[in-house]
Amino acid sequence: MTDVDHDAPLSYRDAGVDIGAQDEALARAKGAIRQSFTPGVLGDVGLFGGLFDMARVGCGGHVLVASADGVGTKLDVAKRAGIHDTVGRDLVQHCINDILVQGARPLFFMDYVGTGKLDPVVVSDLIRGCAEGCRDNGLALLGGETAEMPGLYAAGDFDLVGFIVGAVHPDKLLDGGRVRAGQKLLGLESAGLHTNGYSLARKILFERCGHELGDRPAELGGASVQEALLAPHRSYYQLLWPLLEEGRIAAMSHITGGGLVDNLPRVLGGRRARIDLAAWEVPPLFRYLVERGGVARDEAYRVFNMGIGMVLLVEPDQVAPIRAALAAQGEPVHELGAVDEAGSGVVWA
Amino acid sequence: MTDVDHDAPLSYRDAGVDIGAQDEALARAKGAIRQSFTPGVLGDVGLFGGLFDMARVGCGGHVLVASADGVGTKLDVAKRAGIHDTVGRDLVQHCINDILVQGARPLFFMDYVGTGKLDPVVVSDLIRGCAEGCRDNGLALLGGETAEMPGLYAAGDFDLVGFIVGAVHPDKLLDGGRVRAGQKLLGLESAGLHTNGYSLARKILFERCGHELGDRPAELGGASVQEALLAPHRSYYQLLWPLLEEGRIAAMSHITGGGLVDNLPRVLGGRRARIDLAAWEVPPLFRYLVERGGVARDEAYRVFNMGIGMVLLVEPDQVAPIRAALAAQGEPVHELGAVDEAGSGVVWA
Repeated sequence: MTDVDHDAPLSYRDAGVDIGAQDEALARAKGAIRQSFTPGVLGDVGLFGGLFDMARVGCGGHVLVASADGVGTKLDVAKRAGIHDTVGRDLVQHCINDILVQGARPLFFMDYVGTGKLDPVVVSDLIRGCAEGCRDNGLALLGGETAEMPGLYAAGDFDLVGFIVGAVHPDKLLDGGRVRAGQKLLGLESAGLHTNGYSLARKILFERCGHELGDRPAELGGASVQEALLAPHRSYYQLLWPLLEEGRIAAMSHITGGGLVDNLPRVLGGRRARIDLAAWEVPPLFRYLVERGGVARDEAYRVFNMGIGMVLLVEPDQVAPIRAALAAQGEPVHELGAVDEAGSGVVWA
Repeated sequence: MTDVDHDAPLSYRDAGVDIGAQDEALARAKGAIRQSFTPGVLGDVGLFGGLFDMARVGCGGHVLVASADGVGTKLDVAKRAGIHDTVGRDLVQHCINDILVQGARPLFFMDYVGTGKLDPVVVSDLIRGCAEGCRDNGLALLGGETAEMPGLYAAGDFDLVGFIVGAVHPDKLLDGGRVRAGQKLLGLESAGLHTNGYSLARKILFERCGHELGDRPAELGGASVQEALLAPHRSYYQLLWPLLEEGRIAAMSHITGGGLVDNLPRVLGGRRARIDLAAWEVPPLFRYLVERGGVARDEAYRVFNMGIGMVLLVEPDQVAPIRAALAAQGEPVHELGAVDEAGSGVVWA
């Protein structure tokens, strides 16, 4: 394809890149970004690199823990629903949990938005969601990048990516080294799919069942499909931080893509976990997905979290005090099983 | 659209997500990732969060500098050319320069690959390019995420995003505070477009000129369109680090999206830079783009780096020693102009 008018001057805008829209998106989100700033942040929005002084938040000498993640095709649900300010929180809270399981306190976060045609309202909503998730969890949205890439993404399409850095005192690092046979596995509830398994969930709900977002199938107990699918990814940080500070937890696993089957072994230090599938009630959304999708049991526990978003490995004598501490915050605890004497991986009891 | 066979069991794979392909991509790249590891890295590939101990690389007590970026539509050129192992290096070196300008030494990098259908060879090439770029610049590829998102990206499409963390001793931080009137601006050459302006360059070269990747227009002086467009983004880290350690540089600006016009003011501390456009010869690729695209002068210097990839602000008495030090490494230095007594922004002399 060649241009019709070979003499017309071309600008970046003619090529589909609108720097004005980029500036507008950032301007709209700037207030929320600044509100996430903690005493560790040096300087303001717009530097080449974001500056963070760990000593100013009491983390001098700590080890850094970093992670990168995306929202996955939960984005597609958000787009269909026209709700763009919740997936940022999903992403932040997912990232927080990913480093929390190594004992780290979150320090800062950076976002990336890639898009085909930059809509300043959509992009600022995405960034604002990140900023609010950061603020509510006490970490700073330290910087980010928004890229308008005509041709690489379709016009209304975008991706949202996050990167987190936290810190842990070397003595408090959870690296699987404290896992022992006989330790108990305590499960904390998820709020829904969190950010995993959406490609399969969408296929089942939208293609196989033919659902619209507003449908309220009886099996979901009153929730609409949209409400069930956009329920935010929980952050376990504020809930669990006191227990980590008290050294009550030997290891933790964030149940994300790969489910219990793939995520538990990442922290078991080569040991085997035995899980009693009757230890908790699988929530309605998961039961509906498994039933309507005819999803095999092992596949379901690999693709979906099945109602358990975080697993703590603790010494048997810690079960009662942890249960009591969490009950005081209204948080139920499910005793899922224990670490076996021998073997590796995960077995169902 | 509803499923034809309502009883067939569905798996994640049926929904377009192939965890085996993901594992294969990581397995193929693992060797290159491990080769990037520095003494700061604790643990191995595959933890929830990557662990990094700054003290082990002599950066205890330093301030963190972090940045996020993408490759932009240089990716489209790489895809057309079927070359997937160079854009990772582009991204790493772009990110390095972004934190180098604040005086930071790069410590670690994390990558994100988003894709519609995961091709293990393509994805491992992307990651390997990142890992090799990290290794060659002495930073670790500490972790990353690969997301297969059917429906969100087209089947052969992908995006590549990078996050970098570096560190700088608080006394060596470059934050614009050392910029003074009368300081000189020294320009270092880019290797081409680096990673900016590709949407406009593609429109001019592919649409307006109707070029194929293999074309060698006389104006490019022997290079093919593909060679010109895929020339790697330079890293200025090893070249400039000794000068930074010796405290010879007052400020630096990485000339990325926004060109000289938008990037210089980010480090001028509110002052004005006067640039002599005759101070360097604009390379053939940029001249060709400007001429064939009829790109206005100010637009050209905003969209493209126009041959200058990095600008150093230095005291006048540092010009000769810096020129000598860089000449000893075969690096030409262009004296672009100076910092004005009054005003802000950038003016052409």
